This record gives sequence, C-alpha cells and structure tokens, in this order.
Amino acid sequence: MIYLTRKEHFNAAHKLARPDWSEEKNIEVFGKCANHNWHGHNFELYVTVKGTPNPETGFVIDLKKLSVIIREHIVEALDHKNLNLDVPFMQGVMPSTENLAIKIWEILSPLVEAEGCHMHCIKLYETQNNFVEYFG
Amino acid sequence: MIYLTRKEHFNAAHKLARPDWSEEKNIEVFGKCANHNWHGHNFELYVTVKGTPNPETGFVIDLKKLSVIIREHIVEALDHKNLNLDVPFMQGVMPSTENLAIKIWEILSPLVEAEGCHMHCIKLYETQNNFVEYFG
Amino acid sequence: MIYLTRKEHFNAAHKLARPDWSEEKNIEVFGKCANHNWHGHNFELYVTVKGTPNPETGFVIDLKKLSVIIREHIVEALDHKNLNLDVPFMQGVMPSTENLAIKIWEILSPLVEAEGCHMHCIKLYETQNNFVEYFG
Amino acid sequence: MIYLTRKEHFNAAHKLARPDWSEEKNIEVFGKCANHNWHGHNFELYVTVKGTPNPETGFVIDLKKLSVIIREHIVEALDHKNLNLDVPFMQGVMPSTENLAIKIWEILSPLVEAEGCHMHCIKLYETQNNFVEYFG
Amino acid sequence: MIYLTRKEHFNAAHKLARPDWSEEKNIEVFGKCANHNWHGHNFELYVTVKGTPNPETGFVIDLKKLSVIIREHIVEALDHKNLNLDVPFMQGVMPSTENLAIKIWEILSPLVEAEGCHMHCIKLYETQNNFVEYFG
Amino acid sequence: MIYLTRKEHFNAAHKLARPDWSEEKNIEVFGKCANHNWHGHNFELYVTVKGTPNPETGFVIDLKKLSVIIREHIVEALDHKNLNLDVPFMQGVMPSTENLAIKIWEILSPLVEAEGCHMHCIKLYETQNNFVEYFG
Repeated sequence: MIYLTRKEHFNAAHKLARPDWSEEKNIEVFGKCANHNWHGHNFELYVTVKGTPNPETGFVIDLKKLSVIIREHIVEALDHKNLNLDVPFMQGVMPSTENLAIKIWEILSPLVEAEGCHMHCIKLYETQNNFVEYFG
Repeated sequence: MIYLTRKEHFNAAHKLARPDWSEEKNIEVFGKCANHNWHGHNFELYVTVKGTPNPETGFVIDLKKLSVIIREHIVEALDHKNLNLDVPFMQGVMPSTENLAIKIWEILSPLVEAEGCHMHCIKLYETQNNFVEYFG
Repeated sequence: MIYLTRKEHFNAAHKLARPDWSEEKNIEVFGKCANHNWHGHNFELYVTVKGTPNPETGFVIDLKKLSVIIREHIVEALDHKNLNLDVPFMQGVMPSTENLAIKIWEILSPLVEAEGCHMHCIKLYETQNNFVEYFG
Repeated sequence: MIYLTRKEHFNAAHKLARPDWSEEKNIEVFGKCANHNWHGHNFELYVTVKGTPNPETGFVIDLKKLSVIIREHIVEALDHKNLNLDVPFMQGVMPSTENLAIKIWEILSPLVEAEGCHMHCIKLYETQNNFVEYFG
Repeated sequence: MIYLTRKEHFNAAHKLARPDWSEEKNIEVFGKCANHNWHGHNFELYVTVKGTPNPETGFVIDLKKLSVIIREHIVEALDHKNLNLDVPFMQGVMPSTENLAIKIWEILSPLVEAEGCHMHCIKLYETQNNFVEYFG
Repeated sequence: MIYLTRKEHFNAAHKLARPDWSEEKNIEVFGKCANHNWHGHNFELYVTVKGTPNPETGFVIDLKKLSVIIREHIVEALDHKNLNLDVPFMQGVMPSTENLAIKIWEILSPLVEAEGCHMHCIKLYETQNNFVEYFG
C-alpha cells in the first residue's frame, strides 16, 4: 500500500457566525472570525489517496488525473468565492475548517474510488499555524 | 548601514471591482478577483528598516518595539477585516496589493523615523506566488 | 473524528551531556551537542488534538483556547530558556527532542481532555531537518 | 514509542517511459514525464524510524548515525544521477516516486533494524505539490 | 515605483560539461554536475517587474497576464525538458543557473516592456540552498 | 553582473546583556533575550556574491568552493557554539544579529575577493520572523 498526496490551493472569504445568535454572542464565541463584513484565507489542500502501484506504470493514480479531479470539483467551487454565500455544498453548514474538510472528503471520495484507489486523508491549512485532518 | 526586517501577517477579505464600472467590465478586467461576494487571503507583511546599530545594544531598532508598531497600526486595522469596507485608510482606494503596500508605508514611515531609523521596504505577499515591494 | 493541529514556537538553549560521564565520553556520544557552553534552537511545536466538531460551532476545540493553553503551559516555560537549567519539568531529564516531546504531552494531555477533546500527537522540530512525533 | 524523522535531499534525472511501448503510448500515459531526453527533480526524502528512547541518551537513534546511513546508502546512489540508467537497485523498475520510495525502504529497513529501532515511513517529495509515503 | 513579483516553476534535466574538454577535466571542474547521464532540478523562477500602478486598476501589470507570458515563453520551453538538448535558446550555452537566468531575462524583458512596465530582476533557484539574481 | 547566493545554517546559544549594566537594566532593555542562562536559535545564513560568469564554466564562482569557504570560516566557528563565550571574533561584541552579520561580512569578504568575485550581501535569519541584511 502506497499513499500519494497532491497539494492544491484556493483563496476564499468566509465568516463564522450563526444567524440564530446575536452579534454579541457570535463575537463572544467566534471572536474576530465573526466580523460581519467577512475575512479570508489562502487555503492549502492536501489530498492523500492510497492504493497499490499499477505494475505497468508504477502509479497509484495518475497525478494529473487526481489534480484535475480536485481542481474541477473543489478548487473551481471554492477559489475566489465566499464560503458562506457562493458554495452550494456549504449551504447551511458552518464554514469552519473542520466542516469544510469533511465536505471535501465527501465529494472527492467516490471520484477517487472510481479511479481504482481509496481516499485516505483530507488535510486543510487555514493559516500557516493551523490545519485539520479528516480520515473519513 | 544595516537593514532589519520583521515579518507579520493578517487575514483579510477584499474584492477588486470599481463601482463606476459594470459587473461585466469588472470581471473582464479583474477576473475572479471581482467576485461580488468577496474572497480573501493570508497576507504576509515584511517591514524592512535601515540604520546604524546602537553601539550599546547592537540594535538598529528594538525588534519588539518594531513588532508592536506594526501590530498596533497595521495588523490591528487589517486582520480579519474587509479591505474595501472596514479599513479607514483604504476608503476610496482600489485594494490591490500594490496600493495596500503604499498605504502601509505611509503609515509606518513616520513611526519608524520617530524611533531613529528609516523605512526601507514594504514587501507584501498576497499568495505564495505573488508579492509586491515598495521602497517609497 | 477530526484532527486539529496548532503550531507554536520557542527559542531555547540546551546541551546533551550526562554529569556522571566524563567530557570525553559525552563528546564521543553526543558530539557537538555536548558543547560545555550550550547551543540552541528555534523549536517548532505542532500540537494535534482530535474530537468531533461541535454541531453549533463546527469546532473540535476553540483554536484560540488551544493556543492559549500551549502558550501558558509550554511556551511560557520554554521560550528564551535553558532547557537544562531553567525548566522545572525537565529537571533530571536529558533534554533530547524525544524527551522534551514526551514531557510536553504529559502536561498538555489533561488540559486538552478538560476541553472535551483528546491529545493525538506532539510533533517537535529541533531543526528543519529533524523532528520527533509522540502519540502517547 | 517515539517517531524520529530525518530529512535528506538529492537531485536526479529520470523519465517515465516503457521500452516495450511506442513513444505515442508513453506520451499518452506519462505525458511530459515521458520526454525522451529526460527531466529531473530536487527530491526531498523524509526517513521516519520508531523506537523507545535510550534511558541514558534520550535518543531513539543517534541522528548523526541515521543521517550517515541515509547518505551512504541512498543519497550517494541517487544524487546527481539518472534514475533509469545509473542506479543499480532501480534497474528494471519504472522510476515513479512510488517505486523509488519502496526501494529506499527495502534498503534502509534492515540497516535501521541493526541500530536497534524500526523503520516507520519513507516519505518522498518529487515536487512541492506531490509526495508519496510508504509504511512497509 | 512598485515592484511586483510572480513565482513560477519548472522541472528540468541538465549537465554541466564542455564537449571540448575531457571527461576527467569536466569532472574536476564541475564535479557531480558533469554526470554523463544527466541530473535534474525543480527550478523556481521569480520574475520581478517594476512600474507605477495604473490609477484605475491599482495594478503595475495584470498578474494573470504576467503569469501567461512567463508560462508561454519560459515554462513551456523548459518544463520537463533537457536544458542541454531540448531548448533552442540554450543551444551552445553552458546551462549554469547564471546563464539560464540571463537568457530568461533576454526573452521576457521586451515582452514585459510591451505591457507598459519594466523588467527588474530574474531570480532563479536551482535548489533550496542556492539561487542567482540578474538585474540586466 | 550576476548575483549568486548560497544558504548555510548553524545552531548557537547566546544572550543579549551588558556586563556593565545591572540585571534589571539588561532585562528592561533586552527583555527575555537577557536570560542569564542563555537561549538559542537555528540561524540561517545567506551569502550573496556578485561577478560576471566565467565564459568557460558559466559560473560566477564555484558554488562548492563558496560553500566550503562559508563552512570552514563561519559555520565551523559558530555551529553548536555559544556566541558570547566560544567565538573568538565575537569577543567584546554584543552578539545581536546585526553585529554578527557585520563580522561575518568582514571575514568572508577578502576570501570571496580572492576567488575573483565580490561580496554583495550577508543576510542572517535569527528566527522565521526576523532577519538582517548587510551590504558592507
């Protein structure tokens, strides 16, 4: 079993605030992340798949194909977007890094399976100093 | 003459779009950066000052003092903010990285002079792949 | 289950040398790290906790709270200190990166549990080219 | 159990192309990586071993010894070499990053065992945006 | 005057060896870089242009346009290529990082001028530990 | 004229404190850096030389030779050392990053001249967030 990771990135705006809470409570819980007028990040996304190398090519998966899958289904939907307003699969979901990683897994996992390997990990950096990992 | 650089960072939302242009023209000129609902970045700011080391301390400037100046006057104003809506010194200014670097210079330069050294360069990363430098 | 990581850093001096060994034996075993007059590093610390995201906030743990815990209990004790002389919890312990990571785990684990999630990994870089990981 | 990682690097040329396939098929499957005249990379190699710290030294393994093992047996064989032509242990093997990582594991694992600890992971970066991991 | 930098990268093979010298002399002068069967690198290219921001857009140059220019004229010609054999503008030129940077300047400078700004610097990393800069 | 940079690194301990000042005054001026028992850093050193590429080799200077010069004259003297106690050329000098960069320039400049090129810049990182540059 070999684990292969591809890194992609996207830039997006978001805010962390519940519409069913007062602004005071949102600021108390989410701090500066609740800023009414949004803030944003350069997100770095690491997608790790696992499988056995194909004996003819030595590849777990064609990296270019993996990159295209991530770009078409994730980067296209998130890059230069507002995670709260512009992204269909994040509607009704608090756009924390945790929840975003889970949603990315749910979208990519069947696409990766269709290529003959398995999703292992979604690792998502929000800043240089914090990231989340989800293993399904 | 010694050049001393301090790195700080802030996360902000912005969009590049002129209110006096149509949405079509804004998208034609600014592309995805014109997204109506904003996008954002992890900005990295490098402030370089120059001077002669103090013979007693060996310092061009006390780094902690420089860091406090940058945080109080720049990071406080920009971090987790919307560059178009929330920042007084960016009102009426297109929030390109170029213009933001110039504004940061204008604010920091007299504060650095007051500490006995000179501003040399504002270097501002918008993403890992592009940055601007301004030397006054 | 989601894994969340926070990065902090501290600068410290140490030496690797046993007082019950001769200087010759210390140099033979520990090389330059046994230098009598100390040397030092910029340590980078990655603390990974795991848990299920809170349904209201989307957070495994409030990152700011995790950062405060690490800074108050670890960075405060280690930053700009001598690991052999200045750190109560390292007394009588060889300050290898391995042993330092274990001690950091022992201190942080109950504090993280008290916040409703679990410690998963302490990853500690001594230089850009070597680091240790401890999973309890 | 503590996991210790050492990073080394080497620069090498390779191409991905099967001699039993036509040039057209090689380009169709391997794309630019099939370029007849080779291309190359700065490979970054992370070797992770695991064990219990020695009570006298606090070390899982002497890092300098681990570095010497990697340099003598891997870097010496791969640095400034052509992976298809110059490397005895890659003869007859498609030099994908996946296959190279497996071969490195096979060489290093017994050498690490002889030092009293266990191989845990070979992580090999081909570019900043893709890497593989092999756990045996 | 504002300086704007765009980073791109390419992977290539090369060797440093003069055909009019013996293999012994080539190895004496160029060391491992003279390996007959080539070696390679992940090159990182930083292109810095300078100009005054357009008052309407705040841009020195449209970054996407700059990126397209670099990719079409430089990356397309060098990526996954052999610098000695495959690159028309390197024919008869020793493919040192120094000479490659000069050639990249010569190609890009008129293209950047045609966009209304000036070339300032070509910075080219061959490895993480060495790079060259050329200012024309 | 081409500028060539080589990066090296060393790990050292130091403290910033004047023996002719009281401990109170040292702490007031130097803060945590005055810790009596030392602290330390992973210093990163960038040495930039300038010259015209040799027409036969394409080199401003043989990088391996430059690396050997830096290692023998600087890294050997500073690595795993105490900058206040162990380094002859720092005796009587406050070991600030500014002063250390100046001393490194003074040592390397004639050695680089002897190789037929000129010293351009010493850039020295003390931490990821601060560095100094000296141009003679």
